[in-house]
Amino acid sequence: MPRFRDPPDPLFQRLNASIGFDRRLAPYDVQQSRAHARALRAAGILDSEELARMEQGLDTVADELEGGSFPIADAEEDIHVAIERRLTEIVGPLGGKLHTGRSRNDQVATDVALYVRDHAALARQLAGSLMARLLELAERHAAWPMPGYTHLQRAQPVYLGHHLLAYFWMLRRDASRFAQVGESAGELPLGAGALAGVNWDLDRQEVARELGFDSLAPNSIDAVSNRDFVLDYLSAASICAMHLSRLGAEIVLWSSDEFSFCEVAEDFSSGSSIMPQKKNPDAAELLRAKAPRIASGFLTLAGVMHGLPLAYSKDLQEDKEALFDAVDSLELCLEAAERMLGGLSFHRERLAEAAADEFGAATDIADLLVRKGMPFREAHGVVGGLVREALDQGKALSELTPAELSRHSHLLDDSYYEVLRAGQWLESKGSVGGTASARLAEQLDAARVALEEVRR
Amino acid sequence: MPRFRDPPDPLFQRLNASIGFDRRLAPYDVQQSRAHARALRAAGILDSEELARMEQGLDTVADELEGGSFPIADAEEDIHVAIERRLTEIVGPLGGKLHTGRSRNDQVATDVALYVRDHAALARQLAGSLMARLLELAERHAAWPMPGYTHLQRAQPVYLGHHLLAYFWMLRRDASRFAQVGESAGELPLGAGALAGVNWDLDRQEVARELGFDSLAPNSIDAVSNRDFVLDYLSAASICAMHLSRLGAEIVLWSSDEFSFCEVAEDFSSGSSIMPQKKNPDAAELLRAKAPRIASGFLTLAGVMHGLPLAYSKDLQEDKEALFDAVDSLELCLEAAERMLGGLSFHRERLAEAAADEFGAATDIADLLVRKGMPFREAHGVVGGLVREALDQGKALSELTPAELSRHSHLLDDSYYEVLRAGQWLESKGSVGGTASARLAEQLDAARVALEEVRR
Amino acid sequence: MPRFRDPPDPLFQRLNASIGFDRRLAPYDVQQSRAHARALRAAGILDSEELARMEQGLDTVADELEGGSFPIADAEEDIHVAIERRLTEIVGPLGGKLHTGRSRNDQVATDVALYVRDHAALARQLAGSLMARLLELAERHAAWPMPGYTHLQRAQPVYLGHHLLAYFWMLRRDASRFAQVGESAGELPLGAGALAGVNWDLDRQEVARELGFDSLAPNSIDAVSNRDFVLDYLSAASICAMHLSRLGAEIVLWSSDEFSFCEVAEDFSSGSSIMPQKKNPDAAELLRAKAPRIASGFLTLAGVMHGLPLAYSKDLQEDKEALFDAVDSLELCLEAAERMLGGLSFHRERLAEAAADEFGAATDIADLLVRKGMPFREAHGVVGGLVREALDQGKALSELTPAELSRHSHLLDDSYYEVLRAGQWLESKGSVGGTASARLAEQLDAARVALEEVRR
Amino acid sequence: MPRFRDPPDPLFQRLNASIGFDRRLAPYDVQQSRAHARALRAAGILDSEELARMEQGLDTVADELEGGSFPIADAEEDIHVAIERRLTEIVGPLGGKLHTGRSRNDQVATDVALYVRDHAALARQLAGSLMARLLELAERHAAWPMPGYTHLQRAQPVYLGHHLLAYFWMLRRDASRFAQVGESAGELPLGAGALAGVNWDLDRQEVARELGFDSLAPNSIDAVSNRDFVLDYLSAASICAMHLSRLGAEIVLWSSDEFSFCEVAEDFSSGSSIMPQKKNPDAAELLRAKAPRIASGFLTLAGVMHGLPLAYSKDLQEDKEALFDAVDSLELCLEAAERMLGGLSFHRERLAEAAADEFGAATDIADLLVRKGMPFREAHGVVGGLVREALDQGKALSELTPAELSRHSHLLDDSYYEVLRAGQWLESKGSVGGTASARLAEQLDAARVALEEVRR
Repeated sequence: MPRFRDPPDPLFQRLNASIGFDRRLAPYDVQQSRAHARALRAAGILDSEELARMEQGLDTVADELEGGSFPIADAEEDIHVAIERRLTEIVGPLGGKLHTGRSRNDQVATDVALYVRDHAALARQLAGSLMARLLELAERHAAWPMPGYTHLQRAQPVYLGHHLLAYFWMLRRDASRFAQVGESAGELPLGAGALAGVNWDLDRQEVARELGFDSLAPNSIDAVSNRDFVLDYLSAASICAMHLSRLGAEIVLWSSDEFSFCEVAEDFSSGSSIMPQKKNPDAAELLRAKAPRIASGFLTLAGVMHGLPLAYSKDLQEDKEALFDAVDSLELCLEAAERMLGGLSFHRERLAEAAADEFGAATDIADLLVRKGMPFREAHGVVGGLVREALDQGKALSELTPAELSRHSHLLDDSYYEVLRAGQWLESKGSVGGTASARLAEQLDAARVALEEVRR
Repeated sequence: MPRFRDPPDPLFQRLNASIGFDRRLAPYDVQQSRAHARALRAAGILDSEELARMEQGLDTVADELEGGSFPIADAEEDIHVAIERRLTEIVGPLGGKLHTGRSRNDQVATDVALYVRDHAALARQLAGSLMARLLELAERHAAWPMPGYTHLQRAQPVYLGHHLLAYFWMLRRDASRFAQVGESAGELPLGAGALAGVNWDLDRQEVARELGFDSLAPNSIDAVSNRDFVLDYLSAASICAMHLSRLGAEIVLWSSDEFSFCEVAEDFSSGSSIMPQKKNPDAAELLRAKAPRIASGFLTLAGVMHGLPLAYSKDLQEDKEALFDAVDSLELCLEAAERMLGGLSFHRERLAEAAADEFGAATDIADLLVRKGMPFREAHGVVGGLVREALDQGKALSELTPAELSRHSHLLDDSYYEVLRAGQWLESKGSVGGTASARLAEQLDAARVALEEVRR
Repeated sequence: MPRFRDPPDPLFQRLNASIGFDRRLAPYDVQQSRAHARALRAAGILDSEELARMEQGLDTVADELEGGSFPIADAEEDIHVAIERRLTEIVGPLGGKLHTGRSRNDQVATDVALYVRDHAALARQLAGSLMARLLELAERHAAWPMPGYTHLQRAQPVYLGHHLLAYFWMLRRDASRFAQVGESAGELPLGAGALAGVNWDLDRQEVARELGFDSLAPNSIDAVSNRDFVLDYLSAASICAMHLSRLGAEIVLWSSDEFSFCEVAEDFSSGSSIMPQKKNPDAAELLRAKAPRIASGFLTLAGVMHGLPLAYSKDLQEDKEALFDAVDSLELCLEAAERMLGGLSFHRERLAEAAADEFGAATDIADLLVRKGMPFREAHGVVGGLVREALDQGKALSELTPAELSRHSHLLDDSYYEVLRAGQWLESKGSVGGTASARLAEQLDAARVALEEVRR
Repeated sequence: MPRFRDPPDPLFQRLNASIGFDRRLAPYDVQQSRAHARALRAAGILDSEELARMEQGLDTVADELEGGSFPIADAEEDIHVAIERRLTEIVGPLGGKLHTGRSRNDQVATDVALYVRDHAALARQLAGSLMARLLELAERHAAWPMPGYTHLQRAQPVYLGHHLLAYFWMLRRDASRFAQVGESAGELPLGAGALAGVNWDLDRQEVARELGFDSLAPNSIDAVSNRDFVLDYLSAASICAMHLSRLGAEIVLWSSDEFSFCEVAEDFSSGSSIMPQKKNPDAAELLRAKAPRIASGFLTLAGVMHGLPLAYSKDLQEDKEALFDAVDSLELCLEAAERMLGGLSFHRERLAEAAADEFGAATDIADLLVRKGMPFREAHGVVGGLVREALDQGKALSELTPAELSRHSHLLDDSYYEVLRAGQWLESKGSVGGTASARLAEQLDAARVALEEVRR
């Protein structure tokens, strides 16, 4: 006599089933089941012969999953049910002992935690590879002047290597964040049962050790309700993807005819279906375009958990697709960014020409006046006037005559023209973290150390 | 001769001005300016007499700000301009020296980092107070049985103290997250200048020390473009607010006539404008309702930074309102939650009656069969049949006769009735982290330790 | 000599390809290609024999697509390329003429518009079916009293039919919104070319007529950049899904042991892997849980388009997955909701008992005092005092004695007790749109008319 | 004897009070109260003398509100309470009669609907003004060639007027959307009472007529729970703001030194605090930057309503700040955009020079081959080869020799060089909606008609 008389409605099955997407948890589910089986043995629920058979059965399941021969039954609800069903087909009724002292609630939470931990580690590693690529590019372009921008207006020249390192440090923060995500996923849910704990004293500590968890979820209700680690991954991924969107956007911009600062290699470009001349930086555009879907994944799960009563509710099944999509998108973007940057070529002369814009020295002239005793705010005004005059006359700053200069300030003498000799303005930015070559060299050293830490 | 001939259009002023909301950065701006002035002195840009006058001037500004007498000029753009303007009114042209070697770009980033650091610390502290309240409630209600729920259906009974501790551990994770936010905001931007570094070798290390930063932003472009620390705050706040929304939702639910598990005190309830009998748990509803706006703040800033070219763009001004709103909402919610919980009363008898529902022992009966040698999956089916029979006959499980039991399994003997004696089902959940009293006592101990760590 | 020398990098292919998800545009692409081919014929670019062969080729393609035998080539970028490639395999070089006067930019926009139009119509139809189900339920339960809630506290009793109709009107608004989405997708992009128009004077009006568009996109740049119609679908779907989330949440709530207002049929319920007694309203939970992902889809696309320069950028490829996921989720939810409601059973006695709570008549007593001349605000206060007294004494309102009443107001006489006779409080809500039976009957009539309009 | 013994906790007051932001509903609340008072008179609840006094009192309240002298009491909860309190101070106990047959639930919904209706109309009007400005600019720049872009790569030249009109049509769709929002807010909630209807037969139809509503909310429960019209406003505003973000982003881009296509006037630009030369397009950046906060407002409210049980819950108070912020941001952006565009100047020669890029004619050459009988796909390949050859040799397309051409296709004769004479490529885009002058003239005509419709 079954608990339910009526079979599920096909529409309900479609709505309810997660097998379409939770298959990718399969290796974690098998791994977990192995550890759980050993705990059942330690607690005397299985004998050693039963454990051996169960382990063999799980090995077979793992092989089938890996080899693609694992059969999904009609209307199978999820991968957890499928694996137990298949195990039972292989080892007989013994398979029915595996779920002793375990609920799908703590089982799923454990699988997802394992998945998050692995993919946080992978994201960290991929971030490291991209950092290495950025560092290598920065080293190679350490002495290439380019205009630095604020408000997309030329502001002050910087070295291209300095600019590229800005992305390096963003990625380093991402790598740190993914390390924290790993910690966040480091509490073992298994043993929480449905919500209250289980009727068996299984050795959770040993299971944790075996599965690589740092500690045990201290409260069984929280253990099955908690998806913070997924949110932590999604948040870290959102921020990382935002960084990549800025990188992508700059490459798109710099690849325009108007900027012509760089060119994406052909193997990362697309043509047009109608315009035979086109070579489009599609990869860079997609790096830019992927960020919102990942951030929306954070919102999806935060929205799903909004106001949700304890402990487990079916709504939590909606954690997976947002997570998997973010993982796929982010990992692909990190890899593609690294490869695309590898083939990116910069146009040194074009960059240098743009960097030579004399207006980029306006602050240096103001600071010259400061050195002569004028308060900065006043000096800023004086130089503003010079800029106005130059614009009105259609002259470069260095083309203003001494007579013209003196109308603006009697402090403006030959040193004015000296400041305007190019190159100085980059080297004068000698504060720690500034673009001056010596500081950039220090920064490259620091980057090498930081990269080592990420790769360790 | 000014750089700009035309004054700003009033519409542009309205769009552009941040003074309406960035006032709250004022104390941080003054603090930063003090440190910057001392760095200017150390670099010889100010002499000691000038520094003394400037510090006095800044003291006056600080007093005016605190006392509410600080005058905002017409059409003033932002608090940074306002403070320099006011300082100059007080100390004369000397005030114009303060901005030497500093740009609004690194200045704003520094103020915001200081703000984030302070409010991350405050959020951690408030989370600690709420944890203390939850712990105290859990201790007081450690032995009160209540039904535990999954899918909002009664599942297995738990102790109310155990349920309350689930929130304790959520808040502990929040507290950890806010500690990480503090670290994330721990790199000093000041010294990055507009984007390239500055023309002066100011001692950034000393400034960092004075302002309490752990280290220096290593790249000047990144320093002025980076708002990760704001995103980190918003992400941590989103997750914390989601936890509070679950707490609020449960209190709303439990305060319903149908549940009647608890009652919010009058000083945290509202009446109705038309229905004189009403006593509504408005505070709990608002705890629930505040979460989406905070998560949306994360989306706002992630969206603003999407595809934004380096270095500073005006778009970054949109970091502040999302942040300030999240800070205000979260701090208020944390404080209010702690106070509301202080006055919450639980209904012991009603909880106990609901917890006594025998169906909550179904797993225990299945596990009884497992102890007698039946595989769990089979046992699950047998007990499902018992439940069906009980439902069909309108009986409780303990009212099934031995004859009826034996039709389901010959293993069902007197031990079946023993299991159904209430209380056992809570105490049988003896796995680590489970609801059994001994485990709950361990958990309370662990919570006390965790609280100490947060409060340290 | 090809434009590109290097083949695409495999990582770039993975990032760039949309074939994994844009396959579902295939029928629209074929439909569009048929219309485009006829326009090419009318413009003399194809002769009639060529058109006939091309149409046959497209028929074959359509058959292969429908029958599942359509071959996707290795590393194929998208469905549009695949169809042209396949067509050319079938009809030879003639296939290469199909793309004359067409760009993938206007082609994709046209396919997506066709898709949106169809699925907006389907959403409207499914909303209509759900409205019909709600109306039928409302008719059947028109005379069943239940407690109405505000703040999840019992407020005033209503008829269950009245409560159910609240959802009917939400769905009617959804149906209107989807009709507007159809209009929003009603401008033909085809003919816009890459962005500037095409070099051929194809008869766009005729193409529009053939494909069922109302009008022509008036500006070629806008035509290829515009995804408003997708955003309109996503917005409408978000709001509809939010309505369903409220419906799902109420069914979850009402299915709890504590409420016991209704029971979901077994074919829309799930058991538990560990607790044999459980019958969980999974379908209702998932109705609730799907809303955030759909709303996040709106955010994704709004985020992708944020600050995107004209005309087409690759970023726009990110419109599809958000759209397709929303379509799948919403259509499934609408269908499942209709079916689940079909099997939902309500518990009349339990509802009636809860509706009989006398405090639900508090407003009626206040209004009684108003009829006797007391201002409402004062009457509200008097009744508040009565409620307090009843609570303090543990009495129902009707158990207060005349002596007790007179201490609160001398206007409280026998009519007080009359008002407290149940049933009156529902029938007294006789304002238009109120729950009184006569008004409910009017509302049911209006609902029938509204349903007809949606179904027309 | 009051219902509540304890006064609200100050923290609860802070959490609960909406007076800080709902003040802006005051004029709507007074307007509604006037209509409600007249309905009370018509129903005999007020006599005509009472109505006259009440109307006078409401006039005084309205004057005080407008004049800024309206007193907010300590710890006042919301504007509705404040207005009734103040009215009662003015007219005595009679003020207490105003709330007869009205609940704050239907009152608030009505105020918000009035607010949305007004601001939807205003948004439509402001969109109309911006459309007029765009149309005027398009007319003035109808014959200015510029490069059209896809993927931010030069694609095909277009007229600047054509490009500007793309924004015109976006705004026209926005205007339509706001008209629909007005309809969505067109059902009167008042009369729904707390949730069940009211005990008085007030003439809702007359109230609707007086307040300008099209119809009556047909279901009282839905009437107080419904915020669809707010979501509709937020959705329309999100899409409109996204359009403005694209406009702003293009102006930022075009104002860069590298593009130099246009220049923002000084009165819509900002300087730099440290770089005296800077003139930054801050207004355009902020147009871009405001979109995410508005879209997040949609998410906030959708999130708040997620899974919310019927009827009114306090959570709905969170509708207002998201709405008000969106209204403020959008209206300011629309106005500022119109004004900024008024002062924008374009650089004709720079645009023309960029538009003369011969690669923009590649499609025209392919189409030339098509006219000679070659299938387009083949022609596309031939021209791709020409482009490759030109790039490799560092030549323009027109510099390839006849001998070189013939190596690619024997069909390439003198007509090739004819096509490459500039200007032709714009005029050849003669499909409806294309950039050719005649088509652009038609489009300008259509735009004038469309503008009239919006302004009607």
